[in-house]
Amino acid sequence: MNASKLISSRKDKTLFTPGPLTTSQTVKEAMLQDLGSRDVAFIETVRHIRQTLLAIAGVSKGEGNYEVVLMQGSGTFGIESVIGSTVSPAGKLLVVINGAYGVRIAKIAKTLKIDTVTLEYPTDATPLPADVDRMLTEDQAITNVAVVHCETTTGIINPIEEIGQVVKRHQKSYFLDSMSAFGAVLFDFEKCGIDFLVSSANKCIEGVPGFSFAICRRDSLRATEGWARSVSLDLLSQWQGLEANGQFRFTPPTHAILAFAQALCELQAEGGVEGRAGRYRGNHEALVTGMRELGFTEYLRPELQGTIITAFHYPVHSAFQFDEFYGRLNDKGFVIYSGKVSDLDCFRIGNIGRLFECDIHSLLAAIRATLSEMHIALPSN
Amino acid sequence: MNASKLISSRKDKTLFTPGPLTTSQTVKEAMLQDLGSRDVAFIETVRHIRQTLLAIAGVSKGEGNYEVVLMQGSGTFGIESVIGSTVSPAGKLLVVINGAYGVRIAKIAKTLKIDTVTLEYPTDATPLPADVDRMLTEDQAITNVAVVHCETTTGIINPIEEIGQVVKRHQKSYFLDSMSAFGAVLFDFEKCGIDFLVSSANKCIEGVPGFSFAICRRDSLRATEGWARSVSLDLLSQWQGLEANGQFRFTPPTHAILAFAQALCELQAEGGVEGRAGRYRGNHEALVTGMRELGFTEYLRPELQGTIITAFHYPVHSAFQFDEFYGRLNDKGFVIYSGKVSDLDCFRIGNIGRLFECDIHSLLAAIRATLSEMHIALPSN
Repeated sequence: MNASKLISSRKDKTLFTPGPLTTSQTVKEAMLQDLGSRDVAFIETVRHIRQTLLAIAGVSKGEGNYEVVLMQGSGTFGIESVIGSTVSPAGKLLVVINGAYGVRIAKIAKTLKIDTVTLEYPTDATPLPADVDRMLTEDQAITNVAVVHCETTTGIINPIEEIGQVVKRHQKSYFLDSMSAFGAVLFDFEKCGIDFLVSSANKCIEGVPGFSFAICRRDSLRATEGWARSVSLDLLSQWQGLEANGQFRFTPPTHAILAFAQALCELQAEGGVEGRAGRYRGNHEALVTGMRELGFTEYLRPELQGTIITAFHYPVHSAFQFDEFYGRLNDKGFVIYSGKVSDLDCFRIGNIGRLFECDIHSLLAAIRATLSEMHIALPSN
Repeated sequence: MNASKLISSRKDKTLFTPGPLTTSQTVKEAMLQDLGSRDVAFIETVRHIRQTLLAIAGVSKGEGNYEVVLMQGSGTFGIESVIGSTVSPAGKLLVVINGAYGVRIAKIAKTLKIDTVTLEYPTDATPLPADVDRMLTEDQAITNVAVVHCETTTGIINPIEEIGQVVKRHQKSYFLDSMSAFGAVLFDFEKCGIDFLVSSANKCIEGVPGFSFAICRRDSLRATEGWARSVSLDLLSQWQGLEANGQFRFTPPTHAILAFAQALCELQAEGGVEGRAGRYRGNHEALVTGMRELGFTEYLRPELQGTIITAFHYPVHSAFQFDEFYGRLNDKGFVIYSGKVSDLDCFRIGNIGRLFECDIHSLLAAIRATLSEMHIALPSN
């Protein structure tokens, strides 16, 4: 059976998910090349990527400043790399949780036998900096604090600057999982007091999946000598390798990296983080307006909602079955995402990737048609 | 700076390395597609890949049989996944070493705080099954044995069947790092008694880098419940996820997987493992014949040498500087590989990837020209 041929005969569906995303044709075409991992052109590409990521973060490289480490695997591999490499053997981690990705960080830490405590909130509420302050005051053993920037579970944006200032006042190490926010959410990296931030190639930068990256305060990174609990996911060694000769320690995903370099050019052409944030905001507003007109309601209160991904309640209608709704949209070429909110029935629609307002309108038309096919008439909001 | 454009204007160099490799245009073109990771077409591709890998290994899926697990990251990530997931907390690992990749396995195990012993040989000698037998008899605490199939350090092929039979007689778990051999070296999987084998997408199958795969004896895999020392690299959970719904637990490198499906089609079209082994053998023979004519000598005795990659001594000539030799070949569009043999000055030339005898002849012509440019005349062998 020729699986690849079977697939290639179809037109790509549009992906309204948190990843893998719809990417531009030019990003994908950048992969039509085999580069040696020790080739000067490849090494230059890696250097350029690392430099550009610092510029996007609004920080500089070097002594007293920041460094970028690229790491093979999905975003979760990057998260595990930072958690496993930056909490000392005698350290204790506080994970602030209001969704599935916070839960995952705690699970990673516990699997790595890291002493871990959590501060947990409902998925429709943001963490309170005062609670973090109280925890750090009461438990002096805590050395590291981890927070998720945009919880993809719901699309909520957490108060990373306020929490960061608390963490810094207590002189703890601050880790931000900015997986689905970095590149399209404006924030002041230094004011947040971030020691380590992780995001992935296949989120707001709109590359293809295959690696993640960590932006690290250099002093904090250098202090982690000997702490890594893994060879593959050793953050400091990976950085030292990149610094020594510009190379990955182990075979890099060269094609995904070439795609990412192209994606960074396209981010720049769109006006950087501000430009991209604007497009996603437009997508989000068109989506919410249209979905409300169709009778759907959002899971989050609007003031907590980011513009990356939006969770909607299942409509209250006896004929609504999510699997059928999903399948009919899929057949029309639109891929949405199921929910992950434990206590309520929700589904999610992503606004990121190579999507424009016209794509949102096409999706809305497909949802309207699908509801009609399912004989569901909803009261408009 | 537009890094990607800068690169795209050049013709691809031919890669005579152990990876990343030169791949076919059709393999790369399979990446011109964005598929959702929960899309039925993607799930079917993953299922097809897992099934085909079992067929290549000559084993079957299911109860009492074998299973395939795909794992994000480079080959080393796959190795760490097996080492970290399949040695019990009270287990002890014996690593048989005759090169850098054996050393790496031991390093991974020690970093994971696994009780580890080694059996070490010079890089130009194969391990003796009788030594493994003696170790397992003397140290009853050993539970797992790890061996490298083709040591990329030198290209040596180790006696995996003879060692496997010793390991099985002692009823220990047998792990084979077949990174650069699987898909182009014929062997009897069951007769070797392999419990876990790891290889990567970007070796003899000729896909692009981005993930590795483990072929696992199902009973051995199922016995590892609760042993994994990592979330990202948890082999059993990854398998359970793939079995439950056909999906990766974390965002898969969809494009690299589509390329791999195409690469498997092309392996089949070439006559499977036998056909590919034949092409690599032809490449290797043309290379060695030509290099001897130019005055080079191989590092290994011919009876130990595999057909994957070949190490050559630096020629004894005052004008020979490897960096210059490498750079001049690189400028001509031919990428070779530096040596990794600690005690001797060697370089390596790979025969794998989308390379044919005509490519070997082109390389030989370039080497001849380079020697002439460097004013090096070697006595022909």
